[in-house]
Amino acid sequence: MRLRNKKWASGWLAEHNDLVIDQERATGLQGNWQTIFEKTQPIHVEIGTGKGQFIIGMAKKYPEINFIGMEIQESAVAVAARKAAEDEAVLPNLKFIFGDGAGVETYFTKGEVAKIFLNFSDPWPKSRHETRRLTYKTFLEGYQSVLPAGGELEFKTDNRGLFEYSLYSFANFGIKFDPAGISLDLHNDAYKMVDNVATEYEEKFSAQGFLIYKFVGSFE
Amino acid sequence: MRLRNKKWASGWLAEHNDLVIDQERATGLQGNWQTIFEKTQPIHVEIGTGKGQFIIGMAKKYPEINFIGMEIQESAVAVAARKAAEDEAVLPNLKFIFGDGAGVETYFTKGEVAKIFLNFSDPWPKSRHETRRLTYKTFLEGYQSVLPAGGELEFKTDNRGLFEYSLYSFANFGIKFDPAGISLDLHNDAYKMVDNVATEYEEKFSAQGFLIYKFVGSFE
Ligand SMILES: C[S@@+](CC[C@H](N)C(=O)[O-])C[C@H]1O[C@@H](n2cnc3c(N)ncnc32)[C@H](O)[C@@H]1O
Ligand SMILES: C[S@@+](CC[C@H](N)C(=O)[O-])C[C@H]1O[C@@H](n2cnc3c(N)ncnc32)[C@H](O)[C@@H]1O
Repeated sequence: MRLRNKKWASGWLAEHNDLVIDQERATGLQGNWQTIFEKTQPIHVEIGTGKGQFIIGMAKKYPEINFIGMEIQESAVAVAARKAAEDEAVLPNLKFIFGDGAGVETYFTKGEVAKIFLNFSDPWPKSRHETRRLTYKTFLEGYQSVLPAGGELEFKTDNRGLFEYSLYSFANFGIKFDPAGISLDLHNDAYKMVDNVATEYEEKFSAQGFLIYKFVGSFE
Repeated sequence: MRLRNKKWASGWLAEHNDLVIDQERATGLQGNWQTIFEKTQPIHVEIGTGKGQFIIGMAKKYPEINFIGMEIQESAVAVAARKAAEDEAVLPNLKFIFGDGAGVETYFTKGEVAKIFLNFSDPWPKSRHETRRLTYKTFLEGYQSVLPAGGELEFKTDNRGLFEYSLYSFANFGIKFDPAGISLDLHNDAYKMVDNVATEYEEKFSAQGFLIYKFVGSFE
C-alpha cells in the first residue's frame, strides 16, 4: 500500500519525536525501550502498522502491555500517530517507530519484544520478490533475534497466496504452530473473533466478502 | 463416511483375495509387496480410499507406479475393488488392502512405500476424538515408519477444521512443507489443477461450492 504523500507529515513527525521514534533514535534505544514508556510491562510490536487502527485499538484494550507500531512509510506513520495523538486520549502505552521491519534486530535486544504482529503485509506475489515478504526467512530471523524463546508471532491477511507461502515459510523455519492457531476463515470463527481487533484492511476486505486468514505460532 | 452394508461384499472379497489383501495377508507381505505386482516400481498408498475413484484414476494415469488403496470399511473396499476389476480393464499396478491405516507399520517396512495420500479423511471434529484423525501424530509416526527419508505426504480435504488442525499437526511433527505445496482453494489454482485426480468427495463438494484444500509435504 502506498499512501498519497502528506505535505504535513515530516514537520509533524519532527514535532512529535517523543511519540514517533525515527530509525536513528530507535537504534539508540536498543535495550532501553522501557525507559520511554510510563510503565515497565511487556512490549508488543506490529510491523507495517499502516494507519494505526489495530495498534491503537490494542493499546486501548490492553493497558497492561506497551505497544509499538513500526511503519516504513512516512505518510502512513504520521497519519497513525496523529490519530493516536489527537483523535484519542493520548495513550501512555503506545509509541511508533518510523522505520523498516528489516532492521528490527538493530532496534531491540533479544527478548526485549514479547510478541510480534504482522497484519495484511504487502503480498509481493512475484517469486522474484519473495525476499521482500515480511514472512520471508530473513525477516523471521530478525523477529527471532528480538523475541524470547517461546515468543509469539501473529499474522493476519486476506491474501491467499501470501498466507499459503507464509505457512510454508513458518513451518520450515521451525516456528511452532499453536494447536488452535490457524484460522482459514477468521470472521466465521466465533470463538477466535471474541478478542479480535480489526485492522483497516481487515474491515475493508471482510466487508467485501474476502476470507480473512490468521496464524499464531511461537519461536523456539 | 459409512456406506450401507453390502450383502455381496464379503463373498466377493473372498473370491478376489489377489486384488484385495486382508490384514493378515498384508502383515505377511511386509517387505515383499513388489512380489504381488507385475512390475517392480515405486509404491504409493492411499489411506481411506473410499469407493476408489482417486486410486483407480491414479493407477490409470501413472502406470509406472504401483498403487495400493487401503480402506477399513468392507463395503467400501469391495465397491472400490469391484469397480477396478469390472468397470475398467484390470490394472496390473493396483491393489487394495482391507485394513486399518493405524496398522500401516505392520504392513510395510521402512521405505517400502514411496508416497502416502490422504483424501477427505473423516474429520472427527470433537477435540476428544483428535487421536482418531488420520493426521494425528501417532498416524504420522506410522507413515514416517514406512516412508523413506524425504517421502511425501499429500492431503486433500474440504473440511476447514480438519485442514487447520492438520497444518498444525504436520508442522509440529517436523514435516517439511513444500514451497508451493499448500493450496487453500485448489480448484482455483489452475497450475495445481493440471494433474489433479479428483476423488468422489472432491467432485461432490467442489460442485457444491466448497473450497478444496491441499497440502504436500515430506518427512525428514
Ligand atoms: C497493506 S498495508 C496494511 C496496513 C495495516 N497493517 C492494515 O492491516 O490495515 C502494509 C503496510 O506495511 C508497511 N510496510 C511494508 N514493508 C514494511 C517494512 N519493511 N517495515 C515496516 N513497514 C512496512 C507499508 O508501508 C504499509 O503501510
Ligand atoms: C470421507 S471418506 C473419503 C473417501 C475418499 N478418499 C474420497 O475422497 O472420496 C473417508 C474414508 O476413509 C475410511 N477410513 C476411515 N478411517 C480409516 C482408517 N483408519 N483406515 C483406513 N480407512 C479409513 C472410511 O471408511 C471412508 O471410506
